[in-house]
Amino acid sequence: MENVRDKAEKAKRAFIELSNAETKSKNISLEQMADALDKNRDKIIRANKEDVKEAKLLVEKGELTKSLVKRLEVTDSKIDEMISGIRDVVKLEDPVGKTLQSLELDSGLELYKVATPIGVIGMVFESRPDVIPQIMSLALKSGNSVLLKGGRESSNTNREIFETLLKSLDDKEIPRDAFKLLEKREDVTEMLKLDRLIDLIIPRGSNEFVKFVQENTKIPVLGHADGICHAYVDEKYDEKKALEVCFDSKVQYPAVCNAIETLLVHQNSTDFLEKISKLYQEAGVELRCCEKSFELLKDLNVKKATEEDWVTEYNDLVLSIKIVDSVQDSVSHINRYGSHHTDVILTEDKWAKDYFLNFVDSSSVMLNASTRFADGFRYGKGAEIGISTEKIHARGPTGMEGMLIYKYVLVGNGHKVSDYVGSQAKKFTHVKLDKNFK
Amino acid sequence: MENVRDKAEKAKRAFIELSNAETKSKNISLEQMADALDKNRDKIIRANKEDVKEAKLLVEKGELTKSLVKRLEVTDSKIDEMISGIRDVVKLEDPVGKTLQSLELDSGLELYKVATPIGVIGMVFESRPDVIPQIMSLALKSGNSVLLKGGRESSNTNREIFETLLKSLDDKEIPRDAFKLLEKREDVTEMLKLDRLIDLIIPRGSNEFVKFVQENTKIPVLGHADGICHAYVDEKYDEKKALEVCFDSKVQYPAVCNAIETLLVHQNSTDFLEKISKLYQEAGVELRCCEKSFELLKDLNVKKATEEDWVTEYNDLVLSIKIVDSVQDSVSHINRYGSHHTDVILTEDKWAKDYFLNFVDSSSVMLNASTRFADGFRYGKGAEIGISTEKIHARGPTGMEGMLIYKYVLVGNGHKVSDYVGSQAKKFTHVKLDKNFK
Repeated sequence: MENVRDKAEKAKRAFIELSNAETKSKNISLEQMADALDKNRDKIIRANKEDVKEAKLLVEKGELTKSLVKRLEVTDSKIDEMISGIRDVVKLEDPVGKTLQSLELDSGLELYKVATPIGVIGMVFESRPDVIPQIMSLALKSGNSVLLKGGRESSNTNREIFETLLKSLDDKEIPRDAFKLLEKREDVTEMLKLDRLIDLIIPRGSNEFVKFVQENTKIPVLGHADGICHAYVDEKYDEKKALEVCFDSKVQYPAVCNAIETLLVHQNSTDFLEKISKLYQEAGVELRCCEKSFELLKDLNVKKATEEDWVTEYNDLVLSIKIVDSVQDSVSHINRYGSHHTDVILTEDKWAKDYFLNFVDSSSVMLNASTRFADGFRYGKGAEIGISTEKIHARGPTGMEGMLIYKYVLVGNGHKVSDYVGSQAKKFTHVKLDKNFK
Repeated sequence: MENVRDKAEKAKRAFIELSNAETKSKNISLEQMADALDKNRDKIIRANKEDVKEAKLLVEKGELTKSLVKRLEVTDSKIDEMISGIRDVVKLEDPVGKTLQSLELDSGLELYKVATPIGVIGMVFESRPDVIPQIMSLALKSGNSVLLKGGRESSNTNREIFETLLKSLDDKEIPRDAFKLLEKREDVTEMLKLDRLIDLIIPRGSNEFVKFVQENTKIPVLGHADGICHAYVDEKYDEKKALEVCFDSKVQYPAVCNAIETLLVHQNSTDFLEKISKLYQEAGVELRCCEKSFELLKDLNVKKATEEDWVTEYNDLVLSIKIVDSVQDSVSHINRYGSHHTDVILTEDKWAKDYFLNFVDSSSVMLNASTRFADGFRYGKGAEIGISTEKIHARGPTGMEGMLIYKYVLVGNGHKVSDYVGSQAKKFTHVKLDKNFK
């Protein structure tokens, strides 16, 4: 039986082959993966029924939430989505080997910056089995090996989907060793230690889960723990836009990272605050208010906010509210308490807009648009590997580009450095070229 | 007295101001920094003499090497270099605020990917005081705050240079709090813990030092510990090119990360091996050979290599030698034992060249050119913050681009996500724009 280190070592070796696979082979393999899912629907759904049955027992015992069971369920239409997801990846341009820059250093000495895959990526996710085809197809297309570890609750489904996809691959074209499924909980702890073999970890799941991963590995982590997003309604707002955007940002789907948790309102925009608060309450949103807004809204049966509320991601129909003096004040609040994820200003004022968009230090900043747009699909990426609140490598909603890096290729003709030093030193030309390496 | 956390907190706050400074203000400030260095030469050289005096005492006690004292010395011509280094940064294009991509999501809903600085960067380096003006100027131009910690041996010089540069800044234009000098050894340990305040650590120094940093922080680290670089001489090599490049790659300056540590030679190229070995020995290079090459070269008084030699960075006039069966064999050796830094193939064969350049997983791969070219200045970057063997964010010789990330700016007009879901969902247009945010 392969242990985690064996799997990672095999994936590392397979990476070199996979990173050099032809676009055509990769696309054929992706089509085969899609076909295999289509042909093995019954098996997958059967395996999923076992998982759902067990999960329902856990719900009865109170050990699992109903919403988790919902996310775990695989139906025919979910398989259709997985298949079309894989076919979308076929359509994405192959980024590997693309020349990003080229520069003549001197006559006959040419430097190319060429896009390459990263290596071995560890993907850890909670119970959604649809992550497997999504990440496997993105990894394959981008030339990366991947170790996948899904939630315990969906282990039968995960195994069936993974085996189906893996068997569909022609090992001579695409090395099967590039894809490995981890099945035990201890495997994650083991994987997080393998910083010599694994180049990047992408965790998807609850805050606690992502924090656990971040705090227990030396491997770079791409993702976000908290999603504490804000809407700020400025002095000069358009009422219709402000009401619609603030409502949508909280209510359209509150259980996700890009929904707002705090509403900041300019001190001269209390009319707006009264109107939106009624709409929120009609939609069942619990409001937790700063002193000033509590005074203003006390007839609405609101609660008082504590310091803790400004740093809390409710992921639910709860919203904290604060009245601020100015746009500068709103920006200070956001940079101090927020999670640098997504924040929006509602304003018609150019100065306030510019100030907010430039000074808020978040992965997405918005003007008069719902924070819920911060998402890989909506941002036109075709597929999303995650939303990053990191400040290096990839930030914000991240697609396949987060799985790529580059290498420098220097093509010479016997060039040596000793000719470029000392009193007789040759000079570098450093002329931009418009040439591709491949 | 400010402790490290105070300094980091102030730097973090100052970052938001600095990240929004105008290009003109930044360039004026850089000119002021250059002028201040020029005007304070005497003070700086006086401070440096103290450091050199103390360092020489340590050399006598055997606690410091002579080459370190050499690196520590600041002369008038070194100050000239610092000044021209800062003026080079004035000439670099301001990357902040540049629109990298723009996309229409729907009518009136436009997404911009805009380059931004990262935040607070921790720079830890050993005794070269010239790192201070170099990194301070790059940080200023790229809009990043920076905490600087230099070697103990150059503490007087560092303080004098830092204070000179800092005082030259007009605090109303460029927040002085963005630049902080750390002075005590314990400050480094303290800084490495501040993962909520510091976004990136760049260590420059010995392998042990970089490894210490990598192993003692959760903050992302940009840099390299080992530089185990290889030259591989293929079956079909050009003798002149191969001799010159292999000699230059080892001998031109052996104490640096991009010099080769291992020479791999195709089994049919032993003629070459005999010739280059004589040249190496004339230059005083100690040769440590695999079994086959030991047999071949035994008249030259060479040593036998052990397994340990393949993973050793000598940083000195020592070279390990191995005869390999094929280009594939050389690539396996490099990917297994190398440090993914810089490796070169000497060949005139197209297939071998393509195989090597594509399959070697290093930050720089080269054809018929000295590994010593792998350097930010030679690669035309103007200035180098380091050479990275990381696989994420920045790889290889890295200039100011390694201090940048981006944010997404979404400009809407009251757009809400609820219009884009369900049976009546509006469709995204995802049309590429050619517009700048600013």
